[in-house]
Amino acid sequence: MATHQVLIAGQWRDSDATQTFQASDPRAATLIPEDYPVSSWAECEAALDAAGAAYTELREMPGEKIAAFLEAYATRIDARSEEIRTLAAQETALPAETRLVGELARTTGQLRAAAAATRSSAWQMPIIDSANNIRSCFAPLGPVAVFGPNNFPLAFGSISGGDFAAAIAAGNPVIGKANSMHPGTTRLLAEEAQLAAEETGMPAGTVQLIYRTSHSDGEKLARDPRLAAIGYTGSRNAGLVLKQAADSVGKPIYLELSSVNPIVILPGALKERGNEIAGELTGSCLMGSGQFCTNPGLIIVQNDDDGKQFIESVASQFSEQPVGTLFSLSGQNGLQSAIDTLTTAGATLVCGGTTGGGEGYSFSNTVLTVEGNQFLSHAEQLQTEAFGSSTLIVVSDSIEQTKAIIESLEGNLTGCIYSASDSTDDEHYNQIAPELRQRVGRLLNDQMPTGVAVSAAMNHGGPFPATGHPGFTAVGMPGAITRFAMLQCFDHVRSHRLPAILQDANPNQAWRLIDGEWSQSDVVSAPAE
Amino acid sequence: MATHQVLIAGQWRDSDATQTFQASDPRAATLIPEDYPVSSWAECEAALDAAGAAYTELREMPGEKIAAFLEAYATRIDARSEEIRTLAAQETALPAETRLVGELARTTGQLRAAAAATRSSAWQMPIIDSANNIRSCFAPLGPVAVFGPNNFPLAFGSISGGDFAAAIAAGNPVIGKANSMHPGTTRLLAEEAQLAAEETGMPAGTVQLIYRTSHSDGEKLARDPRLAAIGYTGSRNAGLVLKQAADSVGKPIYLELSSVNPIVILPGALKERGNEIAGELTGSCLMGSGQFCTNPGLIIVQNDDDGKQFIESVASQFSEQPVGTLFSLSGQNGLQSAIDTLTTAGATLVCGGTTGGGEGYSFSNTVLTVEGNQFLSHAEQLQTEAFGSSTLIVVSDSIEQTKAIIESLEGNLTGCIYSASDSTDDEHYNQIAPELRQRVGRLLNDQMPTGVAVSAAMNHGGPFPATGHPGFTAVGMPGAITRFAMLQCFDHVRSHRLPAILQDANPNQAWRLIDGEWSQSDVVSAPAE
Repeated sequence: MATHQVLIAGQWRDSDATQTFQASDPRAATLIPEDYPVSSWAECEAALDAAGAAYTELREMPGEKIAAFLEAYATRIDARSEEIRTLAAQETALPAETRLVGELARTTGQLRAAAAATRSSAWQMPIIDSANNIRSCFAPLGPVAVFGPNNFPLAFGSISGGDFAAAIAAGNPVIGKANSMHPGTTRLLAEEAQLAAEETGMPAGTVQLIYRTSHSDGEKLARDPRLAAIGYTGSRNAGLVLKQAADSVGKPIYLELSSVNPIVILPGALKERGNEIAGELTGSCLMGSGQFCTNPGLIIVQNDDDGKQFIESVASQFSEQPVGTLFSLSGQNGLQSAIDTLTTAGATLVCGGTTGGGEGYSFSNTVLTVEGNQFLSHAEQLQTEAFGSSTLIVVSDSIEQTKAIIESLEGNLTGCIYSASDSTDDEHYNQIAPELRQRVGRLLNDQMPTGVAVSAAMNHGGPFPATGHPGFTAVGMPGAITRFAMLQCFDHVRSHRLPAILQDANPNQAWRLIDGEWSQSDVVSAPAE
Repeated sequence: MATHQVLIAGQWRDSDATQTFQASDPRAATLIPEDYPVSSWAECEAALDAAGAAYTELREMPGEKIAAFLEAYATRIDARSEEIRTLAAQETALPAETRLVGELARTTGQLRAAAAATRSSAWQMPIIDSANNIRSCFAPLGPVAVFGPNNFPLAFGSISGGDFAAAIAAGNPVIGKANSMHPGTTRLLAEEAQLAAEETGMPAGTVQLIYRTSHSDGEKLARDPRLAAIGYTGSRNAGLVLKQAADSVGKPIYLELSSVNPIVILPGALKERGNEIAGELTGSCLMGSGQFCTNPGLIIVQNDDDGKQFIESVASQFSEQPVGTLFSLSGQNGLQSAIDTLTTAGATLVCGGTTGGGEGYSFSNTVLTVEGNQFLSHAEQLQTEAFGSSTLIVVSDSIEQTKAIIESLEGNLTGCIYSASDSTDDEHYNQIAPELRQRVGRLLNDQMPTGVAVSAAMNHGGPFPATGHPGFTAVGMPGAITRFAMLQCFDHVRSHRLPAILQDANPNQAWRLIDGEWSQSDVVSAPAE
C-alpha cells in the first residue's frame, strides 16, 4: 500500500519521507495497515514557504471571506460526518455514535463561532484615541503550527480543533502536524479543509498537513523564523522541548501540558451528599476512559467517617464500572508508570492498579489514597498526572493541612470546591478558595470540571505547567484568537490607509473602545491630520 | 560613608552585601562617592518572602485602596520634585529643568492613570456568560520584579515607571531592582513610595528595593517560584539571560531589548519637504543624546538627487548641533563598538564617529550611509542598535529593494513612512506598508517615533527582539496592566463568592462584556445556581 500523501501548498503530494509509521486500533491492540510519512526537513521548508506566501494574502483579506471558508469547512465536515467518525472510532476507540457525535458537533460549532468572530472583528479589540489620533487593534501574526493532542481527534485536532479555528480566524495560515494516534482522521479533515479552501478562494498554503517529523526537525521548525507561533497540546516532555526552541527565538508558543484538576470536598458537603458526589466523581473520572485534560486526578477530603465512607463509595463505583479502552499501548504503559510513581511516593491502591481488564489497550479503574502528611512530604511526585481512569484521594487532617496541600500544587487547568448547600462550609471555603483560585485557570463550585463549555467567559488555561502563559484561554471565542495575534498600533496614519476596523466609519457596528467608552458608533469628531 | 540601605518588608535596613558599587556623574566623568550594596541571595529571599506575604493581602484589596496608594505616591513625588530631579540630573546628565520636568510629570501622570484604571476595574476585562453562569476576568498574578532601564530614571524607573505602575495597579507587589546608573534617584523615589504605602495602609512588602545582585543571583531570582513575573527594559544580552531563566520555569517576562525604529522616506516626500524632514530627523535623533528606545536608527531613502541632498542636509545639521552627554562610560564605549560594527559591515561615516566632543562621557553626532545592496548582504550587522546620537541612512536603488530591506529587519518598536502630501507616493506606500507594519509595534505616518503618548491605544511593544511578546504594550493603560495578570474563570461559583467585578450588581458602572455586548448595566437575568 502506498504511503499517504502530505498536503503542501494546496496540493496533496507524495512525501519524500524515508521513514513511515502506522497508527493503531486500540480495541484490537493491533496496528492499522496504512503507512503515514515522517516528513523530511525539506518538506517542512516547503510548507513554511507556502504558509508565508499564503499569509501575505490572508493578512489583507476581509474577515467575511475567512468566515466563509470556516463555514464551508464546517458544512463539509457535517456532510462527511459518518466516515470521519467511523475512522476516528477505529483509531481512538471513542464511540462513533455517542461521544464522537457530540465531539463533531462541538468541532463544527467552534469553526462557526470562529467564523462569527472573524466576521464581527470583535476579536481585534479595536481601541481608538481620537484626540491623539492613535488607533490599535490585534492583527494576524503569521504562519501557525498546530500540534493537536491524542484525546480529542476532532475538537482539538490539528486541522479542525480550537487552535486551528482560532489561528485561521485571526488570518493566519496553519501547518497542522497530525497526532500520530489518529493520522487517518486528520487526513479526512484536511481533505475537507482543502476542498473548502478551494471552494472559497483561499490562498494555496492556508491549510497544510504533515504527519510527523524527526524530533530534531520538530525543534528546527519551532525555531524557524518563517513560523510565527505554535499551539501545542500533549505530553509535557515533548511540549517542553518545543517550548525551549520557540522561547530561544522569542516566539509565542501556547502549551497545554498536564493538569491533575484538584477537587476539595468540604466536610459539610460530604455529610450532606457524599454518595451523590461520589457518583458525580465516578462519572467524571471514567468518562472517555479518563482521558480528559480536565479529568479530576486529585481529590481532597477530610479525615473523618464521612471521608472514609466517601472513599469506599468511590472505590465501589469504580470497581463496578466497565473498564474502558485507552488510546494506545504507550498510554497504557504511561498510566502504569504514573501509578507506580504514586505508589512509590506513598499512595495506597484502593482498587485497580493493573494493566488490562478491558477491550484492547486498557487499565483497570483505579482509586488510590494517601494521607495529607505523606502528600506534603512528596508533593511533586504525588501530583504526577495519571492520564486515564485513575484518581488519587488525599485524606487531610484539617483545613489548615488542606490549605498547605493546595499551596504545594503546581498550576492546573481547573480547581473545584464542593461545599454544603447552606453556610456550614463557608468559613473553610474562605480559607482555601484564594489559594486554589491562584493556582487554576477555572474555579468551580459544586460541579465536576470535565465539561468545558465553549463560552466567551471560559478559561481553558491556567498557570504553568498546565499551560504556557496564565493570561490566555484555549477555548472560547474571541479570547482564544488573540493568542495568535500581534498588537498593531497606527499613530497618525492617514485615514484611508487604516484597517477598516479602525476607520472612523463603523458600518458593521463592531464594538470598539473609543476614548475610554465601548461603542458601536462611528468616530464622531474626525481628528485633524 | 555608610553603604545605602535596601528596602525590604517595609523597612529600610542595612544590606548584608559584601560588595558595593558607585554610580557615575556623566558630565564630570567621575564616580559619585555614595556606596550602594550588591545584595546577597539571602536578601533576595527576604524580599521574595515579604512580597509573597504582601500579595495575599493585595489580591483581596479593593481597587479603591490601591488607587489611593498610587495617588498618594504621585503627590509625594510632586512635592519632592526638585530634589529628585537634581539628583537624577547628576546621575544621568539629563537637564533637571526641562527634560526631567516633563519626565516627572509623565511619571506622576502614569501613576494617576494606573490609579484610575484600578478604581474603574476596566483593566480586568470582565466577561459574563449569564446563560452558562461562567464569568471571567483578569486578576493579580503575584510578586513582580522590575528591572528599569538607564534612559528614563523616572518614567520607566523600577519603583516609579510604567512597569511599576502597571504591576501595582493589577494588585501585585513589586521588587524593584534599581538601574545601576541612577541608584540615588531610585532610592529617593522608593522612600516616597514607602511613605505613601504606610500612609495608605498597604502591606509591608508592597514596594521593595534592591540595587544590584550578582549575575547568578539575578538568574536565580528570575527562576524562583515565589516570583510571578518580570518586567525588564535594558540591554539585550542581560535581558536574554533573564528571559532564558524565566522561560525555563514558564514565567511571564516582558522585555524591551533593542530597536532601530526604521523610517522610510518616499521620493515624493523627499522632493516636497526633504529639508523639513531632515530637520525633524535631526531633532528626533539628537534629543536626550539619542538615548531613546524609539530613536530613529535606520533611515531608508531612494538613490536619487533628493536622497543625496537629504543626506547632506542631515549630516550638516548633525555637525552643527552640540554634542550631548551620554549616561555612562559603558554607553560611550558601547556606541563606539556599535559604530565599528556598522563600518566593518560596510557603512561609511558621513560625519562623527569618534568618542568625545561633548561634556564628560560623549560621542560625536554621527551619520552613516550604506548602499541598499550592501545592507542586504550584511543585514544582521547593519541593524545593530547604536544607542546614542547616531543614525544610519540606507540608500535604496528601488522600491523593490526597499521592500527587501524591510523584509530583512527584525522586530522593532516603531516604523514610519513619510510620503508626499498628495497621492504621488501612494503606490510605493502600498507596496511596503504591509511588510513594515508586520515588523513593528507602532506604524507612523509623516511623524518621528520619539514621542510615545500615554494612551489606551498606544503600543509600545512589537515583535521580538524589540519586546518579548508581540501582543502586549508597555505604555498605555489599561493594556499595560494585563501583562501582570492571570485570567481567572469562575464556573458556577456562588454569587456571593464572586469577585465584586463579576457579581450581578454593577454599582460602579464598570464596562463588562455581558453575553456578547459591552455594557455598564447590572446582569439582568440572574442565572439559576
